[in-house]
Amino acid sequence: MSEQKTVAIVGGSGYAGGEFLRLALGHPHLKVTQVTSERSAGLPVSMVHPNLRGRTNLKFVKAAALEDADIVVLALPHGSAAKRIAEFEARGRVIVDLSADFRLKDPDIYRTVYGEDHPAPDKLGDWVYGNPELHRDALRGATRIACAGCFATSVILALYPLLKLGVLLPKDIIATGLVGSSAAGASASDSSHHPERAGSLRVYKPVGHRHTAEAQQELPGHFPLHLTAISTPRVRGILTTAHAWIPDGYSDRDVWSAYREVYGSEPFIRIVKVAKGIHRYPDPMLLDGTNYCDLGFEMDMDTGRVVLMSAIDNLVKGTAGHALQSLNIAHDWEETLGLEFAGLHPA
Amino acid sequence: MSEQKTVAIVGGSGYAGGEFLRLALGHPHLKVTQVTSERSAGLPVSMVHPNLRGRTNLKFVKAAALEDADIVVLALPHGSAAKRIAEFEARGRVIVDLSADFRLKDPDIYRTVYGEDHPAPDKLGDWVYGNPELHRDALRGATRIACAGCFATSVILALYPLLKLGVLLPKDIIATGLVGSSAAGASASDSSHHPERAGSLRVYKPVGHRHTAEAQQELPGHFPLHLTAISTPRVRGILTTAHAWIPDGYSDRDVWSAYREVYGSEPFIRIVKVAKGIHRYPDPMLLDGTNYCDLGFEMDMDTGRVVLMSAIDNLVKGTAGHALQSLNIAHDWEETLGLEFAGLHPA
Amino acid sequence: MSEQKTVAIVGGSGYAGGEFLRLALGHPHLKVTQVTSERSAGLPVSMVHPNLRGRTNLKFVKAAALEDADIVVLALPHGSAAKRIAEFEARGRVIVDLSADFRLKDPDIYRTVYGEDHPAPDKLGDWVYGNPELHRDALRGATRIACAGCFATSVILALYPLLKLGVLLPKDIIATGLVGSSAAGASASDSSHHPERAGSLRVYKPVGHRHTAEAQQELPGHFPLHLTAISTPRVRGILTTAHAWIPDGYSDRDVWSAYREVYGSEPFIRIVKVAKGIHRYPDPMLLDGTNYCDLGFEMDMDTGRVVLMSAIDNLVKGTAGHALQSLNIAHDWEETLGLEFAGLHPA
Amino acid sequence: MSEQKTVAIVGGSGYAGGEFLRLALGHPHLKVTQVTSERSAGLPVSMVHPNLRGRTNLKFVKAAALEDADIVVLALPHGSAAKRIAEFEARGRVIVDLSADFRLKDPDIYRTVYGEDHPAPDKLGDWVYGNPELHRDALRGATRIACAGCFATSVILALYPLLKLGVLLPKDIIATGLVGSSAAGASASDSSHHPERAGSLRVYKPVGHRHTAEAQQELPGHFPLHLTAISTPRVRGILTTAHAWIPDGYSDRDVWSAYREVYGSEPFIRIVKVAKGIHRYPDPMLLDGTNYCDLGFEMDMDTGRVVLMSAIDNLVKGTAGHALQSLNIAHDWEETLGLEFAGLHPA
Repeated sequence: MSEQKTVAIVGGSGYAGGEFLRLALGHPHLKVTQVTSERSAGLPVSMVHPNLRGRTNLKFVKAAALEDADIVVLALPHGSAAKRIAEFEARGRVIVDLSADFRLKDPDIYRTVYGEDHPAPDKLGDWVYGNPELHRDALRGATRIACAGCFATSVILALYPLLKLGVLLPKDIIATGLVGSSAAGASASDSSHHPERAGSLRVYKPVGHRHTAEAQQELPGHFPLHLTAISTPRVRGILTTAHAWIPDGYSDRDVWSAYREVYGSEPFIRIVKVAKGIHRYPDPMLLDGTNYCDLGFEMDMDTGRVVLMSAIDNLVKGTAGHALQSLNIAHDWEETLGLEFAGLHPA
Repeated sequence: MSEQKTVAIVGGSGYAGGEFLRLALGHPHLKVTQVTSERSAGLPVSMVHPNLRGRTNLKFVKAAALEDADIVVLALPHGSAAKRIAEFEARGRVIVDLSADFRLKDPDIYRTVYGEDHPAPDKLGDWVYGNPELHRDALRGATRIACAGCFATSVILALYPLLKLGVLLPKDIIATGLVGSSAAGASASDSSHHPERAGSLRVYKPVGHRHTAEAQQELPGHFPLHLTAISTPRVRGILTTAHAWIPDGYSDRDVWSAYREVYGSEPFIRIVKVAKGIHRYPDPMLLDGTNYCDLGFEMDMDTGRVVLMSAIDNLVKGTAGHALQSLNIAHDWEETLGLEFAGLHPA
Repeated sequence: MSEQKTVAIVGGSGYAGGEFLRLALGHPHLKVTQVTSERSAGLPVSMVHPNLRGRTNLKFVKAAALEDADIVVLALPHGSAAKRIAEFEARGRVIVDLSADFRLKDPDIYRTVYGEDHPAPDKLGDWVYGNPELHRDALRGATRIACAGCFATSVILALYPLLKLGVLLPKDIIATGLVGSSAAGASASDSSHHPERAGSLRVYKPVGHRHTAEAQQELPGHFPLHLTAISTPRVRGILTTAHAWIPDGYSDRDVWSAYREVYGSEPFIRIVKVAKGIHRYPDPMLLDGTNYCDLGFEMDMDTGRVVLMSAIDNLVKGTAGHALQSLNIAHDWEETLGLEFAGLHPA
Repeated sequence: MSEQKTVAIVGGSGYAGGEFLRLALGHPHLKVTQVTSERSAGLPVSMVHPNLRGRTNLKFVKAAALEDADIVVLALPHGSAAKRIAEFEARGRVIVDLSADFRLKDPDIYRTVYGEDHPAPDKLGDWVYGNPELHRDALRGATRIACAGCFATSVILALYPLLKLGVLLPKDIIATGLVGSSAAGASASDSSHHPERAGSLRVYKPVGHRHTAEAQQELPGHFPLHLTAISTPRVRGILTTAHAWIPDGYSDRDVWSAYREVYGSEPFIRIVKVAKGIHRYPDPMLLDGTNYCDLGFEMDMDTGRVVLMSAIDNLVKGTAGHALQSLNIAHDWEETLGLEFAGLHPA
């Protein structure tokens, strides 16, 4: 048997923690030793994550019972991880946080975006933003990984190569995310009540989305970025369309080249732009359960507008899979380990 | 302007009360004067029922503020109406209860089914079971109408003519209801959380459904009736398939004749059994918002089994529309008033 | 009985024609005399539009059998009406065309957009663009009504008051339409195959949408307008979000005022912008079967961006209902006749 | 590298062939060498199965170009494989047929069910019915595997242990299958047109389902079996509820024991019967992409009725996964190879 690292998942009754658990159970170098949940302590994890029936006999424990592990994965509500970070750092050498707590480098921006002072501003510098496509080198050997936000990831991966290589004008970029219901978490609420949600197309964040700050931190250059988020009847997935502007004289080919140059050997980026058939552009339908980010684009040569499209599974490439890919890099394991699922068709 | 009766709706923030309100606002002889809600008192009803924006300026009031009205419609959780029935009887001459409280005639059966003594057993005899197809005569001039249960209605309307005319054997009848999520009401819960429900086919009542008693009370003859209820991804609608048994020598024609004889002039019953095309049998897809009960059937001559099918909108023919049809009869108004909507295609 | 006009529907087996038929059957001043379909001639219309079972005994006839009628409604595929317009003009005094054939005033633009010469360019001047909110006066007594396009309508109604009153900068406006599957018509295709479509979020027209020309013709001022269309798992409905730019010093109130000033007495426009609850902005979920256009907006004061939102049912306010409203105006009938359905909640 | 067998898939543009391809690409002992499609010859397989982008560079070839392979998997429309079986037998030592052609042992029953003579009746005896739970011993070393039907599999696996061990009375068993749209295949049709199907609950086979014969062949004992099939808005999955009858004196425990005795060590059978929570019984929502068959039950002690429930993914345990599990057994490989996916939650 190969090398195995022990993993404890803190806050494992939510969707992000459950998804990391699913992936970790299929990973040859990970051994999940504990999963915590205050509310469900004592219950089998498969009561809450019924897809794992027959896959694990683990039961939830309270966080107070947390023991040492090689890796501690934090899947807590926003704000909780940072307040208790010392407690978790005492338990494991490698910490992965799936929340927004350690993504922003600048505590002032954190205050503006989240409306309160960061609980541990002196720690912010320790963390690597968990996006392998941008920070692969920094992730090698990293012991603090702040998993990127889901909508932010879909925006960043679509824009990064084009901004880096100067294929876009520094002009307003407008991105719209169509988001599945799982992005709002595992707790029932009026807005998630099936009869109110099943047929809905609900603009839930027309302006002021918090991931704007995260995307602006990660993307090169200065330009106005506008995000709008709309909930759809899907459970998983984000489809982002971003409208940006190409300098005179640039064309389709320049977009292609930029994506190829930057993402040419990325294992989880696919450029989807097909001239015919029904699957011509990225579609989250094909990505449930996978770690892919599919990217596509189309240009309006008359106006210089380019429509960039990106699709991900918000819980995998948007959260748990992105985190696992980062962990693979941190440990110098094959980057695709545990992330092999191809996705279903039809789905 | 024609005669108008005033209507107060008690418990109007739920789906049944909201649907009755929608129908009543479009009825030429009804004028809704009050809608109560303890939780939403003070808010416009269109905050809770946003389809009514621009249709009414009514605001919710507390039940304590209830004033006299010609008709009081009770849309309260099960058990509440019966406990407070005297209070409501003091307010209006005609009372319509949309809950299960006054449907069963026999307090012993009520106790068995609902697990507690009926709060007002002496009143049970006052109420007419609100099913126009079975009790049209009793409904004329009625002042107490106990609206039939939704699943029960779909079962009763499919079986009644055949049992009445002896076209079925007194043998086990097995009925399966495929039910939309609105049947569980307007309150959010873990089971109604969109990510858990959107893709689900969930057997929520394999045995022991409470509507069994109601259906057995209303249907002629003695035979074992078995109900199973499964939730589907739809929001509205019930599709019931009932498996029953035809005596030797009977055929398709006898089923047709029985339906025609009993339902020939019913305004809201349609027999749907088409030899070709894609809409060959009843389908709740076509009935959202309508008061129809579509009925169909198919026989297996080799085995004597007949598969009966019935489709309704659980909130209209299954609740509020059935109640309004009963009220129309009680007041000797045209039976279809306020119930004219044809339904949508595609939908 | 009141005055009645006879109506013939040409091409009545599609969704637009079927929806007009549904509405016309409930209209007190309309009497549908014929519905044509080459493919389904001889069949009852309720075979194709099963929601109309029990509502009409009409059977499809071939167009060659068309007789005179007061009103002829053309619901043919794009390009067909214009080629045969003389034939239809010979049959009725009032012609309503639901296709794109007579919407554009300029045959040069028609050629650019549709890739061929207009078959009857000399007729284009006869037609009124069937949008009551913009052309109510011209519609009075009109005998040629070119029904507005569905996506165009959602864009035009959101933008018109703000452009007219100078509340927007003449800067790029980017509009994204989330469209239901019925917009692609009643013919089965690979892209409409349920397993390929049910879970899909498919960008089907990232750039170059034909309705751009229509919207630019109708909207005041000169500005770049960019449309992107994405198909969603809904069957009906369009949710459009449009990103536009407010001059310095303008605010929320100016948007409110502009909508109020222009749409204050419009029977089918509702401004939906609610501070709390789950139904805060327009949502097509609430509009299936209705003629409403719900409008909302939100501003990002930091950047001057305003996000405008509009929701319609593409087959009603987007097609058949808009046409009927126009016909009501043309005949000086109450504008809401036949369009009273409030929509369902939940839905 | 471990032993590898070459596989050719004949008729690989449909859903069954595509799903087998997906599974085979992830199998350590299989190497797919050819995939045929008459219609798509020359195109990359990922044009038709877009989930496989980046997973394979295979292109479709015509069946006429079929070369030798260790294993030939036939995924052709019903009736095609049997007519050309000699041609395929010449190409590979092991043949797996995913169609219905070689499932029934008795050519007379085949004629009754399929309405024509079997094209190769003398070959029927060569084939093992591809259900590992019933025929594991026969599958070892098998060279002809007739993959079980999807609805049949869900019925057989629910009933087999109880009939084998005498826990059910030989009385009418009524099974209802709620089936996703992928079961009807990859070809678009009126009934699969999204606007007609998305909201539908359509009884498409109330009586006379062809899988009845298959289930009766495989199940022990003589009893009347009645199947009804209803299409649901899901894409994948079958939920079957079967109503059967328990002898006096039997109880829950006897059902439990029978399942445990027969399925105790089955890798892909799970008994799901949980006293609380929202995931109490089998639900196809949890099984998309997996090879599980989840089984549950509930008894009505008053009437002796037991409601058996089974859920599968029709394309995996119902087709391609069942076939691959059979192939694993035939080759004496680990039975779960290539079938490790746990399924998603939420999904």
